[in-house]
Amino acid sequence: MLNEQALLTDLYQLTMAQGYWKGGLSQTEACFYLHFRENPFEGGYTIACGFAQVAERAEGFRFTEADRAYLATLKTPQDTPLFEQEFLNTLADFRLTLNIDAVAEGTAVFPHEPIARVTGPILHCQLFETILLNLVNYQTLIATKAARVCEVAKGPVAEFGLRRAQGPAGGLLGSRAAVVGGCSSTSNVEAGRLFGVPVSGTHAHSWVMAHSSELEAFRAFAEVFPHNSILLVDTYNTLEGVRNAIIVAKEMEQRGQRLAGIRIDSGDLAWLSIRAREMLDAQGLGYVRIVASNDLDEYTIQSLHEQGARIDSWGVGTRLITAWGQPALTGVYKLCATRQAGEQRWTPQLKVSEQTSKSTLPGLLAVRRYADEQGILVGDMVYDEQSQPTDDLIIDPYDDLRRKNLTGFAHRELLEPLVRDGKAVGGRLSTLEAQENARANLASLHPTIKRFLNPHSYPVGLERTLRHQRDEIIRQARAVN
Amino acid sequence: MLNEQALLTDLYQLTMAQGYWKGGLSQTEACFYLHFRENPFEGGYTIACGFAQVAERAEGFRFTEADRAYLATLKTPQDTPLFEQEFLNTLADFRLTLNIDAVAEGTAVFPHEPIARVTGPILHCQLFETILLNLVNYQTLIATKAARVCEVAKGPVAEFGLRRAQGPAGGLLGSRAAVVGGCSSTSNVEAGRLFGVPVSGTHAHSWVMAHSSELEAFRAFAEVFPHNSILLVDTYNTLEGVRNAIIVAKEMEQRGQRLAGIRIDSGDLAWLSIRAREMLDAQGLGYVRIVASNDLDEYTIQSLHEQGARIDSWGVGTRLITAWGQPALTGVYKLCATRQAGEQRWTPQLKVSEQTSKSTLPGLLAVRRYADEQGILVGDMVYDEQSQPTDDLIIDPYDDLRRKNLTGFAHRELLEPLVRDGKAVGGRLSTLEAQENARANLASLHPTIKRFLNPHSYPVGLERTLRHQRDEIIRQARAVN
Repeated sequence: MLNEQALLTDLYQLTMAQGYWKGGLSQTEACFYLHFRENPFEGGYTIACGFAQVAERAEGFRFTEADRAYLATLKTPQDTPLFEQEFLNTLADFRLTLNIDAVAEGTAVFPHEPIARVTGPILHCQLFETILLNLVNYQTLIATKAARVCEVAKGPVAEFGLRRAQGPAGGLLGSRAAVVGGCSSTSNVEAGRLFGVPVSGTHAHSWVMAHSSELEAFRAFAEVFPHNSILLVDTYNTLEGVRNAIIVAKEMEQRGQRLAGIRIDSGDLAWLSIRAREMLDAQGLGYVRIVASNDLDEYTIQSLHEQGARIDSWGVGTRLITAWGQPALTGVYKLCATRQAGEQRWTPQLKVSEQTSKSTLPGLLAVRRYADEQGILVGDMVYDEQSQPTDDLIIDPYDDLRRKNLTGFAHRELLEPLVRDGKAVGGRLSTLEAQENARANLASLHPTIKRFLNPHSYPVGLERTLRHQRDEIIRQARAVN
Repeated sequence: MLNEQALLTDLYQLTMAQGYWKGGLSQTEACFYLHFRENPFEGGYTIACGFAQVAERAEGFRFTEADRAYLATLKTPQDTPLFEQEFLNTLADFRLTLNIDAVAEGTAVFPHEPIARVTGPILHCQLFETILLNLVNYQTLIATKAARVCEVAKGPVAEFGLRRAQGPAGGLLGSRAAVVGGCSSTSNVEAGRLFGVPVSGTHAHSWVMAHSSELEAFRAFAEVFPHNSILLVDTYNTLEGVRNAIIVAKEMEQRGQRLAGIRIDSGDLAWLSIRAREMLDAQGLGYVRIVASNDLDEYTIQSLHEQGARIDSWGVGTRLITAWGQPALTGVYKLCATRQAGEQRWTPQLKVSEQTSKSTLPGLLAVRRYADEQGILVGDMVYDEQSQPTDDLIIDPYDDLRRKNLTGFAHRELLEPLVRDGKAVGGRLSTLEAQENARANLASLHPTIKRFLNPHSYPVGLERTLRHQRDEIIRQARAVN
């Protein structure tokens, strides 16, 4: 599905690659981890997504002859070639030999913990960084937004943002992520085909305008689609539209058919849905569903419920597909360990920052997730695989006094093999299985973590050896540098 | 470049298409126009972009056998086929026969006026709606954001948001649009290859961390890239990093080379850039440029200038590529006229809304742009091609008392042929030509239209016959419906 361009990356990955090659470091092994510092939308959780495309992309990573020919044309400001031909020749039969471990799609994840870990030759790790971040940042963002919308909707949510999505693949992968996050269908037909998810949609205002009257337009549509007509009632005047829909619904009843629903796409959705429900019910049309759309998001849907709106299902477009409010997840990919050729042990690495809270974690990082007997999550431990945890204490990465002892709780490893030696590992979740995983994960979160305003902060802490290792390296770095 | 999937559309376009086919309306001709109601970012202008991809897409529009096979599998809730096989058969050799007129890429455009007009069989117009909106909404949004950033930057701006872009094509088309809007380069190598635009970038923090010390890392990089090294100085401690960069710059001087620049990616960019400039200048390194990055946008760049920051060029990522602040342009595609088979004249159509300000414009719409002798734009007239303007008066679409007489100003037509009978018309602007067009367009805007806070509203008005036609149809519709 994705074009296989290896050039869909930042130029500096390629200049660094030439640098590693030239400096004889191309076989230095590196371990990078992908994490983010804050949940999006000031929320309490994040739903991981995008790893199916990561695996696909890792397998298909190739530099074509056209790619190399293009790179050979690039010049420095002094008009000398940017890349040496000998380096470009090494790209001809380049294959990624990375190992990637990641959380399963649909998993609830939290700030500071690794959600993916990439190990292999540092040159390979760099060449794969940009596309990995691109795929995971966006889909994770949209899956999280969708989860928030679907948690409050109390009814099916259809995603239909393609026309406002950021580019065609934004729409395609965004539709997929929206379904993982909980949407029951998408309007995006290609997403339906590629990812095996339900598609939905009926007609637009232009259908009504192209007929001699609204009533004629409704009749014509019901005739073509007797089994699933949802009539858009607000082209001219919404309640007049409801009256016309009722006429058509009654005509359908005489043919032994049932009108599936009406859709309201403008105006005061609370007031109009209540009035429409009364009008439909008064005609014995209690089975006709009311669908609402129009710049909806989790906050407007919550507010509509509070106002007693009579809306059965929802169409959500622009604000979901673009993650209105926070259009990017700021996931980052940081070096956490290196190993020279021939070495057994990894050397932990970190980027010190003037603020400790922006420093990264050093080591061959892994995550252990703890849950209580009811399956409610109680905390995550980040540790260095090279020093297995000796107890179940977690220490906040930035507040030494904030500690939690998870002794007695069951735990499992969060990162699973996704790619081995550049090949996708089998057994990944389908899109609908990832949706099911997200649903189970959301059910395992305490409600206080899911509220919108000042959600409870889920405990993610460092295992004590990792905490010590991190502090020591920062101390040394600050003294030395 | 784009996959040619005709299925990258909303399902309702296909259900309506079947409806038009079944109802014998598939040869009804329609005219749709693309417009938006507000400039993004509360700004005073919008830079149109994306039409090169629209033309490409129109030409390549095909339903493959796999597409039709997938559509045949779709079912109604009653488990009957959603699409009739006979209808799907008509898609086998389907080719778009549309005519599309659009503004040239890089043109400054404004609310309410048509920026593209699509005419042809209504079924074709509908099938092309979603992808047209997707391509134009996103690229126009990003070109506008880039124009705002570049207008204040007073120095080259490099776009490097791929890792945070909304999907891979979001990154690709976003990088293109950023260049049209004024960015001098992108980090996105594939965008460079496909669109013939400059690419830029040097190294990341991981390069520094992968070496035994920052100084060694800088030396190694300068050795591989003696002609265009920009050293990232904030991996450990920024001013210490500047000192190390100075050591390397002095070593380069002894080899007859020059360090191109340093980059600061965190901390207080105003204070650090001023200190770094002093340190470099004190060593006779006035030629070493200072590049800044870190969550920049038009507002932070403006503020940095006000604080006297010594920054020569800029790297802008997340906030440009995702249009932070307003991640979607809400461009819409509305039916404005229809014509039955055999008719000569188009019948104007509009969608009435409860608010007149949301009603659309009826007619075979066109736009005439007026400019003064210095080339400064003074107003745009929207008119119906079927009733050529008899004078140069424009009337605000929603305020009858707001009128402007443009007599004596030169004018030109804004919409140009882009697609004829489904084929792209030659002579389109390249990406860099579109950038040049945007630059000229921005220069033709009065400065008050370009300010960020409460910009002056550019006059877009209706020609008097169109105004009358619109009001009459609304009056009739409100009486009838």
